[in-house]
Amino acid sequence: MGKTVAEKIIEAHLVEGDLKPGSEIAIKIDHTLTQDATGTMVFLEFMAMGIPRVKTEVSVSYVDHNLLQTDFKNADDHRFLRSVAAKFGVIYSRPGNGISHQVHLERFSVPGKTLLGSDSHTPTNAGSSMLAIGAGGLDVAMAMAGQPFYFIMPRIVGVKLTGALQPWVSGKDVILEMLRRLTVKGGVGKIFEYFGPGVETLSATDRATIGNMGAELGATSSMFPSDRRTREFLESQGRGHVWSEIIADPDAEYSEVIEIDLNTLEPLIACPSSPDNIKKVSEVEGIQVGQVIVGSSVNSSFRDLMITAKSLEERHCHPDVSLEINPGSSQVLLNVSKAGGVSNLILAGARIHQSGCLGCIGMGQAPGTGTVSLRTFPRNFPGRSGTFPDQVYLCSPETAVAAAIFGSITDPRKLGEYPVVKDPEQYAVNDDNFIFPPEDSSEVEVLMGPNIKQFPIFGPLDDTLEGPVILKVPDNITTDAIMPAGSKVLPFRSNIPAISAFVFEIIDPGFHVRAASVPAGLIVAGENYGQGSSREHAAIAPRYLNIRAKLAKSFARIHKANLINFGILPLVFANPEDYDALQQGETIRLENVRAAIQAGSETIIAKIKETGREVRLKLNVTDRERKILLAGGLINFASTS
Amino acid sequence: MGKTVAEKIIEAHLVEGDLKPGSEIAIKIDHTLTQDATGTMVFLEFMAMGIPRVKTEVSVSYVDHNLLQTDFKNADDHRFLRSVAAKFGVIYSRPGNGISHQVHLERFSVPGKTLLGSDSHTPTNAGSSMLAIGAGGLDVAMAMAGQPFYFIMPRIVGVKLTGALQPWVSGKDVILEMLRRLTVKGGVGKIFEYFGPGVETLSATDRATIGNMGAELGATSSMFPSDRRTREFLESQGRGHVWSEIIADPDAEYSEVIEIDLNTLEPLIACPSSPDNIKKVSEVEGIQVGQVIVGSSVNSSFRDLMITAKSLEERHCHPDVSLEINPGSSQVLLNVSKAGGVSNLILAGARIHQSGCLGCIGMGQAPGTGTVSLRTFPRNFPGRSGTFPDQVYLCSPETAVAAAIFGSITDPRKLGEYPVVKDPEQYAVNDDNFIFPPEDSSEVEVLMGPNIKQFPIFGPLDDTLEGPVILKVPDNITTDAIMPAGSKVLPFRSNIPAISAFVFEIIDPGFHVRAASVPAGLIVAGENYGQGSSREHAAIAPRYLNIRAKLAKSFARIHKANLINFGILPLVFANPEDYDALQQGETIRLENVRAAIQAGSETIIAKIKETGREVRLKLNVTDRERKILLAGGLINFASTS
Repeated sequence: MGKTVAEKIIEAHLVEGDLKPGSEIAIKIDHTLTQDATGTMVFLEFMAMGIPRVKTEVSVSYVDHNLLQTDFKNADDHRFLRSVAAKFGVIYSRPGNGISHQVHLERFSVPGKTLLGSDSHTPTNAGSSMLAIGAGGLDVAMAMAGQPFYFIMPRIVGVKLTGALQPWVSGKDVILEMLRRLTVKGGVGKIFEYFGPGVETLSATDRATIGNMGAELGATSSMFPSDRRTREFLESQGRGHVWSEIIADPDAEYSEVIEIDLNTLEPLIACPSSPDNIKKVSEVEGIQVGQVIVGSSVNSSFRDLMITAKSLEERHCHPDVSLEINPGSSQVLLNVSKAGGVSNLILAGARIHQSGCLGCIGMGQAPGTGTVSLRTFPRNFPGRSGTFPDQVYLCSPETAVAAAIFGSITDPRKLGEYPVVKDPEQYAVNDDNFIFPPEDSSEVEVLMGPNIKQFPIFGPLDDTLEGPVILKVPDNITTDAIMPAGSKVLPFRSNIPAISAFVFEIIDPGFHVRAASVPAGLIVAGENYGQGSSREHAAIAPRYLNIRAKLAKSFARIHKANLINFGILPLVFANPEDYDALQQGETIRLENVRAAIQAGSETIIAKIKETGREVRLKLNVTDRERKILLAGGLINFASTS
Repeated sequence: MGKTVAEKIIEAHLVEGDLKPGSEIAIKIDHTLTQDATGTMVFLEFMAMGIPRVKTEVSVSYVDHNLLQTDFKNADDHRFLRSVAAKFGVIYSRPGNGISHQVHLERFSVPGKTLLGSDSHTPTNAGSSMLAIGAGGLDVAMAMAGQPFYFIMPRIVGVKLTGALQPWVSGKDVILEMLRRLTVKGGVGKIFEYFGPGVETLSATDRATIGNMGAELGATSSMFPSDRRTREFLESQGRGHVWSEIIADPDAEYSEVIEIDLNTLEPLIACPSSPDNIKKVSEVEGIQVGQVIVGSSVNSSFRDLMITAKSLEERHCHPDVSLEINPGSSQVLLNVSKAGGVSNLILAGARIHQSGCLGCIGMGQAPGTGTVSLRTFPRNFPGRSGTFPDQVYLCSPETAVAAAIFGSITDPRKLGEYPVVKDPEQYAVNDDNFIFPPEDSSEVEVLMGPNIKQFPIFGPLDDTLEGPVILKVPDNITTDAIMPAGSKVLPFRSNIPAISAFVFEIIDPGFHVRAASVPAGLIVAGENYGQGSSREHAAIAPRYLNIRAKLAKSFARIHKANLINFGILPLVFANPEDYDALQQGETIRLENVRAAIQAGSETIIAKIKETGREVRLKLNVTDRERKILLAGGLINFASTS
């Protein structure tokens, strides 16, 4: 039987298991990427393993999240990452050099290789046909240590693209259409592999846009073939030699096929406050806009900034709009500058920022009270902008620039002739912003500032767990809600005791005090608990606050893996209606839970002490994950196995 | 008798008094500038006056301080300023358009006109021969209302420049030399007027650099003639028509003359943590540097950025250094971009930020723990960087870029051939970033966000004041120490109740609680109390916390004016040794102080209740200021007179 691109890459990297969807597999990881907000913890974990040097082909430590530097903490983190990268054989990408996904695509991506990143948008590198997966930091640390990455073999869903995008419609609209059809839960347990004649009409960075926001579908990853367009991109980066063709066999079978006719796609927009709250731009025209941001994690490539700059030629942004540009990399800004785009953008009134995530993770750029903000970002979860409540819309650069010009949401097709933007045949390249590690790092000193704390040690699973429901939350709780980002909280990412005080702060500011006051506590949740960002702090910090089990209707993939990695039981209601019966404050007892997990039981019985009622829970984990849970987490497990 | 340039301009604007140094005069104000950190309060004060439209020739509301936008507050302030500017006939300069001083110089400065700004670095516009004075916000609000500006006629000190600057020495070194000779107190009660054959060797922006940091000398202002170089600059801005020649009469007399031979000047540097802690760069060579910032309030012009960019050609910043660029205006960045400088800077590894004050006022860019930071900024007061303790050095772009390249403080003359930078004959100009007010603003709604609070109302001076010494501080306390800036505090500038909690936070975190718990309190201080930034919050917030009198050995000019404007008695020890005798916590009684001030007494007797001792204090204020103090502040005074 023929194979899909994803299957070919997985097969070539398979260490354990077989390619049966739903079963656990382990694959060899070629590349890792970390960013500073998750990376400080990854390196603290890696240091705890006592391994002298990373065992991957390429590991890069990016600094793109915490760039505001309102006090010593951010700069200390940068220095720590620079020193620890040199110590352990990791390439360090300096602050301002760019966003991990874009920079990795430009300078390191290799078709057919695997990439594990401690950032949920790692699948951006699907743009050059890497199998790129976002994971918790500890999984990435393990991969750096040469361990395979364990995950559930996803179903490979084919997305057949036909036709070609019409003027003022771009890659972002393709992924918004996917979100419209499938919602933020529609990708769970799946890899979306794009194929068909429409694929060739999309450049590597268009594909990267689609791969990036596959994360918003909850997908394990997204996949594109490595074809002429991939080669074109790598050649323009002076890296044509790493290209090889990888295409699906003619008789490859997808578990399901979705078809999108690019010809008929219209400009789309995600309305507040979920990436799947999709409307046609034409349906929401006229809404007044106060802020427009192009760039950050997605849509920050040369094309994206140039289409913005060219659309603004002889035009100026509306007096009511703050137009802001967050370049994906210093390389992007360099090439936009050489192509005259920077002058254009300044003339049009844009605020050009250093390259980084910035407002995309609430590091600045917060909109004013009641202000509508249009952003080309991947996420618009409530309050993620730094303003609460906020009104954030997600769209393409085309739709963004139209709003910037008119001062209200406007179908970009009203802008007239679609400017021609051609990617450079040869990008101007600047690799001096990478600091490559020395061969011999014995002299390198790891520099830790006062805000960088050792990783906390957790004990193994108790025989019996008993504790109150500290919090009950509804469906689709994001990791942003569990562990907020933003300028106030992110600087504490390397300090678990300090950051724990912010857990659930947006939903319930008293959470951390209630949780820390009992020896064990539980959380009850609805569907798709832990969607969004990959941040493992959404598991570590609750664990630090003695949360020992989470009971949910379902879990998002990365968050579930993080819970297991830090010894929190991810339990699913056998009968979803039991969710309604459980109340915050009730005491739940998991009698002999250790023995049950040891025995391989898939069912765990919870007893509500107040009512005497019993609730049946499922523990859907692999044998390996059972052992991790028993050990109290992956670090404990790895050090004893 | 012949006249100096300063005397000519003052005379042409004189409303009250005569040009006798030390006597109070009042002058007509042609232009005002405000920035957002002081400007929100200026407009709240202006609104309280009930005047429909500003009466100046030009008033501009700049947004350059609070650009980080970590939550809704900054953006709300911007929107408030935009709406209130339109309402009252003020030009609004959008966030990202640039720093008030640089932008005003480029687009609005007119030789011979007066400019009053709610920012201590307003004298930057000496660069094009304005009489530019920094003042408290309320003084600026009064000027916007058409009232004259009252101040003490300064002595006009001549600074005779001979020769020409040598390669790698620039305008910054001239003002650092002035600081070396005169210290941060050396300019009190003076205008420094530069003359002599060396003046013509300095461009308008070099002169602006010198004028800017005249503020660090404590000077009332600095002055340059309007000559060929001034015309050259205005013509390059397409504004040659506003130029007129203004030069000192051949027989003009200066109260004193200082001579600087530009030929012999070497690269200088201000060491931590005062702008007058000057050394030759060659004396401190070799100190390792972690951060270098070029730009912000001073040295952010085309020349400054281009000399940086050209020095970096074919070079890269040192791996240990974060090199950052804060352009003075979007116009500067536009022209640097057109000249190829942006590409150069990116290639060299620089982080290019939006145009604004940023790290200069602690809005981001904080250095790491123990990290040496070289900045072209005007101030390096302790902790102003956002990191405490910090090690901030001030220097020219030339010295900064040398450190960025070598990774340690290095005499820039070691960089080899000095690049040639010629200012553009015609700057590319973009005035669309200004929003000009409508003729009829009756329909304009002033938009106030939830963090923008009405100006508090204070009562008149009591018959007798009695209260404890809440705090005793040493010499040279800055307004940064009294009312910190930085990313945490600045967003509360339009909210006096909230910002008051941060008064003296760096020195004494308990201050605000102790002060607010008694009906009246006093502060005891040494020399030059209130130097530095013009922020009137350093007077309003203490007044809000019931501080009713400050006893000092001497006061900085702007701060003293602010104290009077908000009804705090600025009392000077008749015998400076009495400073030593007074202790924090002692209760001081100013018996019948109201009657004494009413009677015109220059001596106020303070009685220390605990010891029964009497201390003689001087009240060196004008008759008008007496009335303001009796009324409880300028707003009360203006509304009753």
